[in-house]
Amino acid sequence: MVKTAIVGLGRLGKSHAENLLNLPNCDLKAACSIIPEELEWAKEHGIQELYTDYEELLEKCDIEAVFLATSTSAHADQITKGLEAGKHVFCEKPLAVNLEECRKAAEIINKIADKKVFMLGFVRRFDPAYAFAKKRIEDGAIGKPFMVRSQTSDHDDFAPFQVEYTKHSGGIFHDMNAHDIDLARWYLGSELKSVYAMGGSYVHKEFEEIGDADNASVMCEFADGGMAVITASRTAFHGHDTRTEIYGTKGIIRIGFTPAIADVTILDNNGIRSECVYTFYDRFKEAFALESKAFIQYIETGETPIISVLDGVKATEATEAFTVSFTKRSVVQISDI
Amino acid sequence: MVKTAIVGLGRLGKSHAENLLNLPNCDLKAACSIIPEELEWAKEHGIQELYTDYEELLEKCDIEAVFLATSTSAHADQITKGLEAGKHVFCEKPLAVNLEECRKAAEIINKIADKKVFMLGFVRRFDPAYAFAKKRIEDGAIGKPFMVRSQTSDHDDFAPFQVEYTKHSGGIFHDMNAHDIDLARWYLGSELKSVYAMGGSYVHKEFEEIGDADNASVMCEFADGGMAVITASRTAFHGHDTRTEIYGTKGIIRIGFTPAIADVTILDNNGIRSECVYTFYDRFKEAFALESKAFIQYIETGETPIISVLDGVKATEATEAFTVSFTKRSVVQISDI
Amino acid sequence: MVKTAIVGLGRLGKSHAENLLNLPNCDLKAACSIIPEELEWAKEHGIQELYTDYEELLEKCDIEAVFLATSTSAHADQITKGLEAGKHVFCEKPLAVNLEECRKAAEIINKIADKKVFMLGFVRRFDPAYAFAKKRIEDGAIGKPFMVRSQTSDHDDFAPFQVEYTKHSGGIFHDMNAHDIDLARWYLGSELKSVYAMGGSYVHKEFEEIGDADNASVMCEFADGGMAVITASRTAFHGHDTRTEIYGTKGIIRIGFTPAIADVTILDNNGIRSECVYTFYDRFKEAFALESKAFIQYIETGETPIISVLDGVKATEATEAFTVSFTKRSVVQISDI
Amino acid sequence: MVKTAIVGLGRLGKSHAENLLNLPNCDLKAACSIIPEELEWAKEHGIQELYTDYEELLEKCDIEAVFLATSTSAHADQITKGLEAGKHVFCEKPLAVNLEECRKAAEIINKIADKKVFMLGFVRRFDPAYAFAKKRIEDGAIGKPFMVRSQTSDHDDFAPFQVEYTKHSGGIFHDMNAHDIDLARWYLGSELKSVYAMGGSYVHKEFEEIGDADNASVMCEFADGGMAVITASRTAFHGHDTRTEIYGTKGIIRIGFTPAIADVTILDNNGIRSECVYTFYDRFKEAFALESKAFIQYIETGETPIISVLDGVKATEATEAFTVSFTKRSVVQISDI
Repeated sequence: MVKTAIVGLGRLGKSHAENLLNLPNCDLKAACSIIPEELEWAKEHGIQELYTDYEELLEKCDIEAVFLATSTSAHADQITKGLEAGKHVFCEKPLAVNLEECRKAAEIINKIADKKVFMLGFVRRFDPAYAFAKKRIEDGAIGKPFMVRSQTSDHDDFAPFQVEYTKHSGGIFHDMNAHDIDLARWYLGSELKSVYAMGGSYVHKEFEEIGDADNASVMCEFADGGMAVITASRTAFHGHDTRTEIYGTKGIIRIGFTPAIADVTILDNNGIRSECVYTFYDRFKEAFALESKAFIQYIETGETPIISVLDGVKATEATEAFTVSFTKRSVVQISDI
Repeated sequence: MVKTAIVGLGRLGKSHAENLLNLPNCDLKAACSIIPEELEWAKEHGIQELYTDYEELLEKCDIEAVFLATSTSAHADQITKGLEAGKHVFCEKPLAVNLEECRKAAEIINKIADKKVFMLGFVRRFDPAYAFAKKRIEDGAIGKPFMVRSQTSDHDDFAPFQVEYTKHSGGIFHDMNAHDIDLARWYLGSELKSVYAMGGSYVHKEFEEIGDADNASVMCEFADGGMAVITASRTAFHGHDTRTEIYGTKGIIRIGFTPAIADVTILDNNGIRSECVYTFYDRFKEAFALESKAFIQYIETGETPIISVLDGVKATEATEAFTVSFTKRSVVQISDI
Repeated sequence: MVKTAIVGLGRLGKSHAENLLNLPNCDLKAACSIIPEELEWAKEHGIQELYTDYEELLEKCDIEAVFLATSTSAHADQITKGLEAGKHVFCEKPLAVNLEECRKAAEIINKIADKKVFMLGFVRRFDPAYAFAKKRIEDGAIGKPFMVRSQTSDHDDFAPFQVEYTKHSGGIFHDMNAHDIDLARWYLGSELKSVYAMGGSYVHKEFEEIGDADNASVMCEFADGGMAVITASRTAFHGHDTRTEIYGTKGIIRIGFTPAIADVTILDNNGIRSECVYTFYDRFKEAFALESKAFIQYIETGETPIISVLDGVKATEATEAFTVSFTKRSVVQISDI
Repeated sequence: MVKTAIVGLGRLGKSHAENLLNLPNCDLKAACSIIPEELEWAKEHGIQELYTDYEELLEKCDIEAVFLATSTSAHADQITKGLEAGKHVFCEKPLAVNLEECRKAAEIINKIADKKVFMLGFVRRFDPAYAFAKKRIEDGAIGKPFMVRSQTSDHDDFAPFQVEYTKHSGGIFHDMNAHDIDLARWYLGSELKSVYAMGGSYVHKEFEEIGDADNASVMCEFADGGMAVITASRTAFHGHDTRTEIYGTKGIIRIGFTPAIADVTILDNNGIRSECVYTFYDRFKEAFALESKAFIQYIETGETPIISVLDGVKATEATEAFTVSFTKRSVVQISDI
């Protein structure tokens, strides 16, 4: 029974809390948030100790682990403090708002984290389809992987606040492609060497005005000669559509090509039709549950998580390189980032 | 170069004529029809000899083959006369309006047809998907076939004339399932023994009023113990949808499960969607062309057609048994038909 | 927090227990089994009170609900005793080994169960795909349903013990089609009127020797004129394959046509390929979890379960009628069962 | 009846000849080849006038059109001479072996071709799926297209002669992506501005040795801000797999995602499986027939072909730019080519 606290209870935090509450070997006994409504929600869900101050939580509450679902700007500091206080730490991606912060945080984390579990939320690795593909690749099903094509497409539900959000998030690549590059690294087993990005604001000119794009693609060269083509779209009218294709020396494996709400098809005046999931919450619902489960299990078993702080640094390095390449309209070497 | 005449130039006849005109080894030199517009169409398409009388055609025109696309009530007589006149004969299915006529015709045809090619239009056997499945089954891909599930669904474009037509055609089973039972016999390699049919007029009550149905299913027992489940629907809103599944002792083969206009999918506000073909002309366009080609080839090579007059008798026997079973609401033995 | 006991810890019982352990509002505090290994398993999973006698459990243990995953022959008696002892009762389907027992049990249950929650395990109703289809139908997506086609195909992993098991289970229809008929009733909203079944032992002759089949189909007439075609197969080489199609007056809805392990496809020397789930445990994993969740929720909210004892009686009535029809090779009226 | 000669009767030439022989409004009366076996084949197929010299054909034979399926190095000269001799000319792509030749040829062709039909063989535009997608886009189905993702994957049937062939063909981009860039231009309605290519010899090191690749991708920027991502693979183990996705401001359209031999699926020990076509001949069989038909029709009707000499120049410009970018590992502006 791992005594755990959830920190941050926005939409994603609530979802994590529900998953932790459902775990038989996790005692989600505390919640921390500066927003009264969030603590109210925690109380209603039977979380008994409520804190408004993270440091107070670490100091006073009898917990073994913290689960951070706070805003990105708080991540690095909260991870460090949590580890320093002797807690296991799960933190949502990304590691920090910019690459410098990421690297700084990673340095500290690496020093502390040897005896505590630290894990970043690259949730797709826990998705049954992505995990099954990984297993089949390790079984040799497609030989040695050499090319990854991966896309993250969000349902087009444009609202002005998205433009506001994007001003601070760092843009389309940081927002959407951290998972894709993480998957590419995971499947290829190599590190990124150079990138070339391209994109435009084809549907919502508002993104152009802030120097961003609503659709973009990146060509990635890897150190061992492998490659990846990564695409981001904010304008998928059919729903959230995350899919990945991995080319190997003996075959190809394809993940997520049927992003339907359920294995249900309607045949009517419109033809043959599947309705798609609209959000990544829906698409990765099971993955989020398995991610929480894995974190608690790592704590209990002492096994090393499949995601390390390095993965967080590398993902931000990559999305930063994508952004620079897109802005400068030129090929960017990772070594220059 | 097989000198050929087309007889009957309704929608299906025109389609056959076009296919014959496209064949390099066929000289479609004559057309016969009692409808002036149809002969006009023939003239415009470069068919040079035009007849209004079938017997005159047989007598005067220098042809080796006739291609009959006339109304069912004329089939038996025209086939017999054609063969007696020493011509090769292709005739659209069904062989005759009722089973008695079919059997009578078959008897005569069997006596005459030994030196001439006779072929009925069970077009689905020439469809690339159905033919490929047959080939794979013969290769042993699914072991020995023992169950067939087959459906013919027509696009729902209800119009009162359909009810009128149905009064004379013999009803939903004769209209729609002749091909399905032909395929079941072809794939199972056995003859029908007993049937049990059920159905209703669920969408268009007009069919009920004339003792017919708009949706129906039949359970078929075969002589060797095999079985088939055959379905007919007049109310497919998504388009024409013919599909067949064959169960074997080592696997299942499935044909026609993606009845899209082309391998094109649209992803938009409606989800992920394929538009379907609307008519059997569209669905079996290539099959019709290959059927004409096969007929001419059989004449040239002297090979025995894959479809015989027996297939025509058996199909009508079956659809007659379906109809009796549906009307009497009881199991019907083929031996009693 | 609903205090609950699990009774019976075979493969399915263990799976239920795990689901109950994961529920935040369920306290699975007791287990009952006559098999020592099963109680051992319960102990290892943190279930604290262990019983070998069901009546003792009811008498001594402070529980509100029992979850029965015992052998079918025990169901009726255990349900009755549980309800009489004032417990909420979940019981795996079927209600009893034969129809007479079912009816007797139902009578008793109906008298007692007014203040307690009673629910049978028709798990497919909780499957996200089946539930989503139900919702879309209620939304009017396909008009009024009039025909259901449903199949249950089990992975062919033939072993002699299956034949032994089948001797007592009542045969292929009882084994496999209870869910299909339950779904047909649920979607059509009407009761079964007559049935006609057919089948054979096409792959494993062992089933024929005990008067059973390895593949079978049933044509079902419903009281309101609707129909269903239900198929069972013990010989699906590709895996467990449960699928259902519902025809309505405006369209068709299709459930479960992609029974893959995950949304993963491999493209290699074999073509384009999906690997399928092998067992109904895998196919309905999420449904089982949602079923447990629903049961506990019904207890907490006092809502009426979507499955009643009547559903259990009707399903057994149907599978009994299928069996009689198959054996007698004739149409069977439900009123004669 | 358009009197036509076929020039060049290799594999593709024979296929074209068969299509022309099947056209009712084409009289394929002559064939020209320097290879005796090819003329033998022509004779056997009923082509009556046989030439070994192209100029002699143009001078002596009473034809209106020539259909060039010769080696690329002969194209430019033969097109020019054909047009100068007053013949309509169809020529297989590409226009010439290098860009300079293409441009020179185009200049001459443009001067001559005003009264004669000239058409290059960008066959995919005639494929029913690609043509249907074009029509739906013109109907507004996906709004304004802004991004194309297109791939050409050839079945991996590596043989040393391919490496030899590639030495002269100009490499993977010239070999495989001319159609993709042609489609991107067609759907986007804009011209290429800059490209960035990347690739490797991941399966067959032999290609690396001659400076080529067996898998590659290109990012393309278009003049109006649109983009394309184009992929080539010589190592598709499942078969020939050409597919294209077009993103528009209202939706996405997807072409060719089911490259099966026929709409047939096998369910067996391997799971659920479709076998794929192995060659572009098989994939584009119908497109080749429709292409021939269109050429003859353009001659008869005087309509302007949907493909002009400019399309040929632009495609070679693009594949040349891809090659330069791949070799120099840098972004290449089309204006510098």
